Amino acid sequence: MSARRGFDTPEYLGRVQRAQAGMAERGLAALLLTTEPEVRYFSGFLTRFWESPTRPWFLIVPVNGDPVAVIPSIGAALMAGTWIRDIRSWRSPDYSDDGVSLLGDTLREIAGAGPVGVPMGHETHLRMPLADWARLQERGLDFRPDGGLMRDLRAIKSAAEIDKIRAICAVAGRAFDRVPEIARAGVPLEEVFRRFQMLGLEEGADWVPYVAGAAAAGGYADVISPAGSEPLRAADVLMLDTGMMRDGYFCDFDRNFSLGPPAPALRDAHARLIEAVDAAAEIARPGATAAELFHAMDRLLTGGQGSDAGRLGHGLGMQLTEGLSLIPQDDTVLQPGMVITLEPGIEVTPGRILVHEEVIVIREGAPEFLSPRAVVEMVELEV
Amino acid sequence: MSARRGFDTPEYLGRVQRAQAGMAERGLAALLLTTEPEVRYFSGFLTRFWESPTRPWFLIVPVNGDPVAVIPSIGAALMAGTWIRDIRSWRSPDYSDDGVSLLGDTLREIAGAGPVGVPMGHETHLRMPLADWARLQERGLDFRPDGGLMRDLRAIKSAAEIDKIRAICAVAGRAFDRVPEIARAGVPLEEVFRRFQMLGLEEGADWVPYVAGAAAAGGYADVISPAGSEPLRAADVLMLDTGMMRDGYFCDFDRNFSLGPPAPALRDAHARLIEAVDAAAEIARPGATAAELFHAMDRLLTGGQGSDAGRLGHGLGMQLTEGLSLIPQDDTVLQPGMVITLEPGIEVTPGRILVHEEVIVIREGAPEFLSPRAVVEMVELEV
Repeated sequence: MSARRGFDTPEYLGRVQRAQAGMAERGLAALLLTTEPEVRYFSGFLTRFWESPTRPWFLIVPVNGDPVAVIPSIGAALMAGTWIRDIRSWRSPDYSDDGVSLLGDTLREIAGAGPVGVPMGHETHLRMPLADWARLQERGLDFRPDGGLMRDLRAIKSAAEIDKIRAICAVAGRAFDRVPEIARAGVPLEEVFRRFQMLGLEEGADWVPYVAGAAAAGGYADVISPAGSEPLRAADVLMLDTGMMRDGYFCDFDRNFSLGPPAPALRDAHARLIEAVDAAAEIARPGATAAELFHAMDRLLTGGQGSDAGRLGHGLGMQLTEGLSLIPQDDTVLQPGMVITLEPGIEVTPGRILVHEEVIVIREGAPEFLSPRAVVEMVELEV
Repeated sequence: MSARRGFDTPEYLGRVQRAQAGMAERGLAALLLTTEPEVRYFSGFLTRFWESPTRPWFLIVPVNGDPVAVIPSIGAALMAGTWIRDIRSWRSPDYSDDGVSLLGDTLREIAGAGPVGVPMGHETHLRMPLADWARLQERGLDFRPDGGLMRDLRAIKSAAEIDKIRAICAVAGRAFDRVPEIARAGVPLEEVFRRFQMLGLEEGADWVPYVAGAAAAGGYADVISPAGSEPLRAADVLMLDTGMMRDGYFCDFDRNFSLGPPAPALRDAHARLIEAVDAAAEIARPGATAAELFHAMDRLLTGGQGSDAGRLGHGLGMQLTEGLSLIPQDDTVLQPGMVITLEPGIEVTPGRILVHEEVIVIREGAPEFLSPRAVVEMVELEV
C-alpha cells in the first residue's frame, strides 16, 4: 500500500486537453462543474467535506487555458495544494449571495457570450440550489447540455486511475478473505457489516462508504436493505457487496458465503453466476457493446427475460457506479481503459436471488480482472 | 445500543401532518422531494444505495393524504417495508424515460393544476438530471419554491430523533476516549484516521462517513484536508472531527489532543474554545438567535472580527450539517428541539488555528449537551 497519493500534474493536463478537444468539437466555450467527482476529475481536490451540503463548489474548464476554481474560502488552502492556480473564493455561507455573483462574473470573463456546457444527462445532477441556478441564468449566460462530454471523458481510465482501482479491489479482496474471522452462525448481520468495514479499513481502505448484503436460507430477497439484528443461521447464504475507497477511487464487487455446506440448488445457482461472468468476460473486448455483455449473461441467467434489478453491471471509478449500464438499451462500444463491473443475478426460487459481481478493465485482448475472482464453490462459514 | 431501529408510524404521521399544515399555509398542493434525507424524512426509507448516482428517487407529499413513492423497481421491496403504501415503480435505468412520465402522471393525479413545492433554497439541490427536470416542466406542472418548508420542518427534532443523535454522539464519545490506544508519536495521520473509524464502528456506529482533522505543532492550518502519511510528532496538536452515523442520524463533534504536554499558548487557546462553548451554551435558549450565539463566541475568539471558516456552528441531524448557521446574518430564532453544533475556532498564531465542536439540543431552559463535553485540559498522547 505504498503507492503514492494523487496524480502527477500531467495526468490532469491530459484530462483538460481531452476535455478541451471535446468542447471545441461541441462548440462550447467552457464547462461548469458542481459535483465532487467532476471538480476532482480536473483538479485533484480531494476532501470528505462534500459530506456537508451547505456550501456550493464550482470549477470552470475553459476551452483554452487552465481551469478556474470558484469555491468557499474554507477550501482555498486545500485547493491551493492542487495544480489549480486560479482560485477565487468567497466567505460561505452567504445568504445574500452564496457565490452566484462571483461565479457569474468569472463565467462571463472566461466564456464571454459563448455557450457554457453543463452536465445535464443521465446520472448527473446540479449541486447548487435551484434558486441560485435561476439567478445565474438571469445573468444572460448561455448554458447548454455538455453533450455527454464528462461521461465520455471519465469512462476511459488512465493507467494511473486503473492502478488506484486495482489497489482498492485488492484491499477489499483481502477483507473478503477474512470474512470467516467475523461471520459465523449466531452473529447478527449488522455486526457482520460493522466488522467487515473494520476489516476493509485494516486492510488499507481510506473509507468504506458502501456495504450492502443480505443473509437468508435459499437466497435473499433484496440487496439494498440495511442490516438487521437477526443472527446468521445454518443454511443461510450470506452476500456482502462493498464499495470501498482508496485515494478517491472505488471498488465494487461482492462475495457469497454459505453457512455450512450449500444446498445443491444454491451451489448450482452460484456456479451459474460464475459462468455468466465468464461468458461476459469472454466477449468483453474493444468493439463489443454494453448490451452484448448484458445478453451474454442474461441468456444464462433468465433465458433472456431480464430482471427487475435492471442491469447486470456498470461503470466504476470515482463513483460507486458511473457511466454505462449493462442493459439491452445501452449500445456503448467498449474501449480499452473502461472499468466496468459484471454483476449477474439469478432467481433460485421465486423471490429468492443470488447476485455476484466482479470488476474488469477492458484491454486490447482479454479483459483484466481487477477484483480477485471468486471461485465456483462458495466459501463455507462456521455453523 | 439496544435501542430499536427506525421510528414508529406515528412519528411519520406527525411529520406529514406538520408538512401538510405548512403546505396549506403556503398554498401548495404537494411537495416533490428527490434527495436522500428528504425522502427518508417522510418515509423512513434507509439504504446506502443512494451512494450510486444512477437512479433518481422521488417522494410526493400531497396536501391531503399519504405520501406516494415513485421509485426504481430495485427499491420497491425495501420501500414496501416502510409505512408507505402507494409505491409506483419503473425499471431503472431507462434511457428513454427514467421515471419522468410516471412522475409527471403521478404529480398530475395528486396535485392537479395546483402548485408543487420543491426545495430550491440554501443548502438544497435537485437530485435528478437537469434534462429530465426540463422534460418534467414541459408537462405543464406548476413548480414553485417550497418556501423553506422542508428546512423549517427538519430543524426541530422530535424526542425520538434526539435519542438517535444522543446515541451516536455517545458512540463517538467512546471512540474519542480510546484515541490514546491508536495515536501516539510516530503513527502516521492516515493510520490514525483509519483506526479511529474502526473504533467508531466497534463502539456501535453503522457508518463513519466523515473524519476530518489535522496534526501540527502550534496549531493546524486547515481542517478539511485528507490525512497524509506524516507521523505524529512530539508537541503536535492532533484534532479529530467526526460525523458518524447510527440508524440514519449523525453526530458531529471533535476533540483536540496534545502529543506530550501542550505549550502554554495552546493550552490557553484550548481553554478559550471551551469558554466560547460555555458562552454560547449560556444564552442558547428559546428566543435567542443563531447570530447571537455567533457573537457570544466570536467576542471571545477574535474580538468580534469573524473568521474565514464563515460559521461557528450549524444544525445537525440526518445530514452532517443542515439548516441554520451560526453567522452574523442568520437570524433564525432558536426553538426547543433544535439540535446544533457549537464550533468555535481560534487563531493561535497567524495561519495556525485550533477548532473545537460540541453538540447541543435547545430545551426550555438550559440546553442539553448531546456530546460528552471535552474538559479544559487537552488529553495528552504518548510521545
